Amino acid sequence: MQNPNALESRKRLIAVARGDAPADLVLKNAHYLNVFTNEWLDGDIAVAEGKIAGVGGNYDGKEIVDAAGKWVVPALIDSHIHLESTIVSPREFAKIALAHGTGTVVTDPHEISNVIGTDGIRYILQATEGLGLDVRVMLPSCVPATPFDENAGALSAEDIDEFYENPRVLGLAEMMDYVGAYSSDATIAKITAAHAHGKIVDGHAPALTGRVLDGYVAAGIYSDHECDNYENALEKLRKGQYIMIREGTAARNLAALSPLLTPQYASRCLFATDDKHPNDLLEKGHIDYIIRQCIKAGIDPILAIKAATCNAAQYFSLRGKGAVAGGYDADLLLLDDLNSFAIASVWCGGVLRAEHGKTMPLPTPAVDEKLLERAKNTMHANTISAEQLSCGKQPVIGLIAGELLTTDCGVAENIDVSADILKVVVVERHKNTGHIGIGYLKGYGLKRGAVATSIAHDSHNIIAVGTSDEEICAAVNHLIAAKGGICVADGENVTKLPLEIGGLMTETPMEQVNEMLENAKSAAYALGVNPQIDPFMSLSFLSLPVIPALKILTNGVFDVTTFSYRA
Amino acid sequence: MQNPNALESRKRLIAVARGDAPADLVLKNAHYLNVFTNEWLDGDIAVAEGKIAGVGGNYDGKEIVDAAGKWVVPALIDSHIHLESTIVSPREFAKIALAHGTGTVVTDPHEISNVIGTDGIRYILQATEGLGLDVRVMLPSCVPATPFDENAGALSAEDIDEFYENPRVLGLAEMMDYVGAYSSDATIAKITAAHAHGKIVDGHAPALTGRVLDGYVAAGIYSDHECDNYENALEKLRKGQYIMIREGTAARNLAALSPLLTPQYASRCLFATDDKHPNDLLEKGHIDYIIRQCIKAGIDPILAIKAATCNAAQYFSLRGKGAVAGGYDADLLLLDDLNSFAIASVWCGGVLRAEHGKTMPLPTPAVDEKLLERAKNTMHANTISAEQLSCGKQPVIGLIAGELLTTDCGVAENIDVSADILKVVVVERHKNTGHIGIGYLKGYGLKRGAVATSIAHDSHNIIAVGTSDEEICAAVNHLIAAKGGICVADGENVTKLPLEIGGLMTETPMEQVNEMLENAKSAAYALGVNPQIDPFMSLSFLSLPVIPALKILTNGVFDVTTFSYRA
Repeated sequence: MQNPNALESRKRLIAVARGDAPADLVLKNAHYLNVFTNEWLDGDIAVAEGKIAGVGGNYDGKEIVDAAGKWVVPALIDSHIHLESTIVSPREFAKIALAHGTGTVVTDPHEISNVIGTDGIRYILQATEGLGLDVRVMLPSCVPATPFDENAGALSAEDIDEFYENPRVLGLAEMMDYVGAYSSDATIAKITAAHAHGKIVDGHAPALTGRVLDGYVAAGIYSDHECDNYENALEKLRKGQYIMIREGTAARNLAALSPLLTPQYASRCLFATDDKHPNDLLEKGHIDYIIRQCIKAGIDPILAIKAATCNAAQYFSLRGKGAVAGGYDADLLLLDDLNSFAIASVWCGGVLRAEHGKTMPLPTPAVDEKLLERAKNTMHANTISAEQLSCGKQPVIGLIAGELLTTDCGVAENIDVSADILKVVVVERHKNTGHIGIGYLKGYGLKRGAVATSIAHDSHNIIAVGTSDEEICAAVNHLIAAKGGICVADGENVTKLPLEIGGLMTETPMEQVNEMLENAKSAAYALGVNPQIDPFMSLSFLSLPVIPALKILTNGVFDVTTFSYRA
Repeated sequence: MQNPNALESRKRLIAVARGDAPADLVLKNAHYLNVFTNEWLDGDIAVAEGKIAGVGGNYDGKEIVDAAGKWVVPALIDSHIHLESTIVSPREFAKIALAHGTGTVVTDPHEISNVIGTDGIRYILQATEGLGLDVRVMLPSCVPATPFDENAGALSAEDIDEFYENPRVLGLAEMMDYVGAYSSDATIAKITAAHAHGKIVDGHAPALTGRVLDGYVAAGIYSDHECDNYENALEKLRKGQYIMIREGTAARNLAALSPLLTPQYASRCLFATDDKHPNDLLEKGHIDYIIRQCIKAGIDPILAIKAATCNAAQYFSLRGKGAVAGGYDADLLLLDDLNSFAIASVWCGGVLRAEHGKTMPLPTPAVDEKLLERAKNTMHANTISAEQLSCGKQPVIGLIAGELLTTDCGVAENIDVSADILKVVVVERHKNTGHIGIGYLKGYGLKRGAVATSIAHDSHNIIAVGTSDEEICAAVNHLIAAKGGICVADGENVTKLPLEIGGLMTETPMEQVNEMLENAKSAAYALGVNPQIDPFMSLSFLSLPVIPALKILTNGVFDVTTFSYRA
């Protein structure tokens, strides 16, 4: 149980705190945030053994950083993210997140677990062990998302149980099954198992209110990150849920929820990004961006910073996180300026990880070779041929720009590019079943070629749309050959972004990935895709059968309003 | 791991929350405290499966309590108590505590563990399992209190390790060894073991400040209950410790520390009693008394109630405690009046435990027979004779009324009642070593007879003071025959309070115990004891060798200033 070094390490920390031994690092004359007393104080911050030894005294150390005139706050915590949404490996994500002052992220490996089951959890845990960014894991609660999804396999309470032993596993991730949370033994068993392990359960209950919300809360679900309006958030907060104010790439709720950041409510508020794409991370930032927005909106910086630090630590029972105080992890940000939240330096566990937006070289966590091979070989589908895509009359799904909702546009029998009727297919790729769901799509705008992606929520089969069966086959087969990713194909012109890890992520650096992604987008727009929609994201959510009206799965067009396939 | 009933129980709770099934109990139209939003709200409180199902809706239930015009708050939490200080068994204590609105106490079985080692922890755990009052345990960290103490045996990190498995064990109790916390491997090993189990460590560091406090905090000690002034408390709070505002029987810090109960600091404040004697409990109350004092002093009742409920739950990671909200334990108080904090009814785990100061019959926890026998037979000493008490010149310890400090009053060779020089002895009673420490005492005032008690901190040997060796022997031998307790002896007139459990507690109801104790006090005062001092408490602390100047141990008079025996 005991780390043999824990005792020696603690002894040295105590000695440094007392001034009996030099610190590893001292931030001299810092203006630091005291999250316990809600005030800015001045003094030295002494760091040793990866922890803060003491604060406020006049400390000596091997390395001295002059922090005079600068602010020091705890490194930031993202309370809910799917690392897969960044489409890079955890290590490549960490490089960017650290540069933006993030010290800890709580990730739900929901996407990769749909592709490789519990190996997805294993992969995320191994790929983040000792990474330099502190990555904590909530176990995916809803794999697959629905009984109609064809993914790599269902995860039961028993399947995920062993992971609770890992101290970096904090609980059960967003319980999306807010019908099942009332009625399904399998779902409630997952919740009660998390409780039995002394762990928490995150919620996901958009717009849930009144008595049904009471039922959901009574299930033992302690937070929500799906509030898009103040009233719903306040109702959930009153009922005891922590509110994760989500400001990600697709869903942005900060403007609606920032009125909660007052002394009356703020202690129950956290920040989360949920999904965060490369360009958004690179251009706007991460949790630091949220804090900047808060400060701009006139919110007390202390309340905003606490939502990103000690409040999250409190919710997740991360005892050593989220404060500039003795005994706490030395996860620290040095700010050149508070109002612009200009981050000069970032330390995690006492190690300097980034300076002025530049990340230092990070450790490379060792992922078990077989596991990595499994994660990089998830394309279990034969190449397809145009004949397989012939179909009779099929429903037409209507895309709405800027929405995940779709409309029911009747039926079609053929592709009609001039009328913007394209064919859309979902190719099963986990178990080589040969299942291909086929339908039509209106509103996408493609005039030539085809677009395919293996990021297709939540089962992450291959979804493709095209102007002919042949073009669709070409794009899908390119993806199969690339072991997943994104592909825009127009005859010989093929633009690809290979995502070799689970068909979701790549080990290529984020800047390069972003460039490739932007190139692919440009290629798609050049082929006619409606400039009001994201060519890939719009497809990625077309296969998520929980948002009305019509979606497409591996067995055809699915009517979310009746929760059944269209005959 | 999973309770087989957890699933069915959770399902019913959800159904009740949704209004699909009747509650067990509904408090109708209550004016209840929402600790999350710091406001009073109106609505029903539905209880099922020992938990709150939902709040605010219009609920139906098997039992309806009209709460209109009344206040509902969470039941109260005592964050630090030694149950032994009440000198009754946990069950007899619970009867009184519940009547005063206490739902949870966090106890440190330090006293009984000095007498019977880890069996003391076992006894407290067994004697409180399913009691009706929720009793949580912090493992004693400093048994014995000093290397000079002769107690039943030392408890190492290894000795107490197994108890961390028990979900009612929350951590390591008050680390009194604030010298050792810097220097002793054995002490630091206890702390790092608690950390490794994911548990907390309470502090005990009177007046510690500056760099030495930094060292103590850096050791990983998360709270302090020994602040007797605002400045010291604020320093500790700033450094990250939770402040347990202690208002017990002997030590009362509320007046000094209540200025912390402001919005800026209150979230880091808890309430504790530490030591609480029968008359104080019966006359003034428990944590309810502290809240009443706060309200009288003009403190926002919400802040005071939170210190006694959700703040404590947060500190101890008691996830289901301290709020009137769905999914939380139905530990509830119905108040007739908020300002006088007049408690009408008390529910714990959904069971009505007290009404208007009267406790319902409580369950009787089953204590293992052999364990109980061990706990009730702790007098391992032969009767003594006057010859054993002869001594040459010995130091004279000077008592100061109302203080635990003593003075050095030189030496004496004989008892001199007219000069108030009495003999004081400590008889070892754990291992039948025959050790008897002998010295003289000034300031006690006894004119006839002798007084003896087996409550003698922290080792709980027998301490006795008397006007002759024969009278001392008589009192000590009465105590040995009674298996411990308190005795006032004047020839044939013997007033006894037997404390059969470890020589510290009794299964006699508290009201009766209090009467017997008052009788014994009267008897002692009648024999001349200085009316300004407590005849028994003053002796109990004479054997605690951590408070200057002179104390008495089993091997003689001990000089705390030099931390050695007087030659």
